[in-house]
Amino acid sequence: MSDAATELTPFLKELVRQVRAQDTYDFFQGRPETDLLAPFILDKAKAKEIPIIGDPDPRVLARLNQFYAAVSLTIEQKCGIMASPVLQLSHEGFGRIVLICGRLVVVSKTLRDVHRFGFPSLEKLNAEGERLVAEALGLIEIFKPAAEL
Amino acid sequence: MSDAATELTPFLKELVRQVRAQDTYDFFQGRPETDLLAPFILDKAKAKEIPIIGDPDPRVLARLNQFYAAVSLTIEQKCGIMASPVLQLSHEGFGRIVLICGRLVVVSKTLRDVHRFGFPSLEKLNAEGERLVAEALGLIEIFKPAAEL
Repeated sequence: MSDAATELTPFLKELVRQVRAQDTYDFFQGRPETDLLAPFILDKAKAKEIPIIGDPDPRVLARLNQFYAAVSLTIEQKCGIMASPVLQLSHEGFGRIVLICGRLVVVSKTLRDVHRFGFPSLEKLNAEGERLVAEALGLIEIFKPAAEL
Repeated sequence: MSDAATELTPFLKELVRQVRAQDTYDFFQGRPETDLLAPFILDKAKAKEIPIIGDPDPRVLARLNQFYAAVSLTIEQKCGIMASPVLQLSHEGFGRIVLICGRLVVVSKTLRDVHRFGFPSLEKLNAEGERLVAEALGLIEIFKPAAEL
């Protein structure tokens, strides 16, 4: 946490909090924050080992939920409006996730191949989280009355 | 279909179309429309036979989807904007369904005890469908730019 290489952005810190919140058995206690985020990184070598078609297991579903929970909570921190996720997912890992503020859909994403959910690097994980938050805040600004409903 | 007792409202006609669309084996062919809607009716006697706690089976899930598809399509017929359902449901039959037009949530409903999904009468089934459609159309009128996004 102290050196530059492991200094986390606010979004990644929120994601770490989400992972810790579900760490019921203190498996991650005392381990560096980047260790907690390692399962979110799917570089080329790791991606190659995962079959093209497969059913998402509970661990990858937990990470998917943690990622969108971190997006939701960052949105709330920035604008004060609670965002709640609604996830529709088939057993094969296809579906849709939306984050909703009031009556406004602030994030909408089609999901495919959820068993391969992950990001090429920590930077890309952070960039995607921040992109979704920024898009949501932009929509909330335009359609505030619907978001506050 | 000809006498007053079985004259269906536009919403119920749409629901019949949804049921027929999934009737792959022509099980319902040639049978009166009220027969197709009978599984949606859960009167006191039938409700008593269903356990308080239970997992929703594929048939009740199909009916849930058909009901909200009929609501979605009726909304589209009335205002020209497509509505798409997103359903998040646990194995125990708890969850949430939203219908979305563009970026606007036009219907949002918490689901409980989905294994007991049904309506006390045909009139109440129709009333609930029409209520959801009316609510959606009201929201679309207020927040049209978000619905058209």
